[in-house]
Amino acid sequence: MEKLQSKVFQIGSEVEWENVGPGLNRQVMGYDDKIMLVKVKFEKGAIGELHEHHHSQVTYVVSGSFELNVGGEKKVLNEGDGFYIPPHVMHGAVCLADGVLIDVFSPHREDFL
Amino acid sequence: MEKLQSKVFQIGSEVEWENVGPGLNRQVMGYDDKIMLVKVKFEKGAIGELHEHHHSQVTYVVSGSFELNVGGEKKVLNEGDGFYIPPHVMHGAVCLADGVLIDVFSPHREDFL
Repeated sequence: MEKLQSKVFQIGSEVEWENVGPGLNRQVMGYDDKIMLVKVKFEKGAIGELHEHHHSQVTYVVSGSFELNVGGEKKVLNEGDGFYIPPHVMHGAVCLADGVLIDVFSPHREDFL
Repeated sequence: MEKLQSKVFQIGSEVEWENVGPGLNRQVMGYDDKIMLVKVKFEKGAIGELHEHHHSQVTYVVSGSFELNVGGEKKVLNEGDGFYIPPHVMHGAVCLADGVLIDVFSPHREDFL
């Protein structure tokens, strides 16, 4: 079986955008079976609904402002901040100002391919 | 044994910076045993020396410009681009304009804690 992995280099302007909800668009960047990096662009008011998954997740706030809810704990995060979501912990986000999140998962998100 | 994991929320202005070379500073953000997100600030001319490790790595270019070398293949990457480094593939970067990379590893980098 061919090894599951992305190309080595991802040029942002060449990667397909997928609309995944109102004001929510994403690009799947680098990945293999153990890890996957996803760029998610939010418009103000866009909502990442509360959900959970078996993957560990780490996220970096590239720009914008977001109210996070992780396991019932709420916090407003801005450019330069980040968060960690353990497996199976409920989480969601509301975008307070247009911005970009870098979500990274381990293992990779099969459902995103 | 206590589970290895970071706090849920990382506030960028509160996370310790570590100098890791000339013009190179990093913050360890979210992590557990399977994944770790690291913010690396580069000044123009700073060099990430060629090296390899057993971790899978995905990186996002938040800002700046970088000449990457991954397994001998060279490419200039800018804001919004990314790259994937398979385990044990030699890689390095030269910073062409001040910027920030988000490096994410699986499993986590024990050597960064």
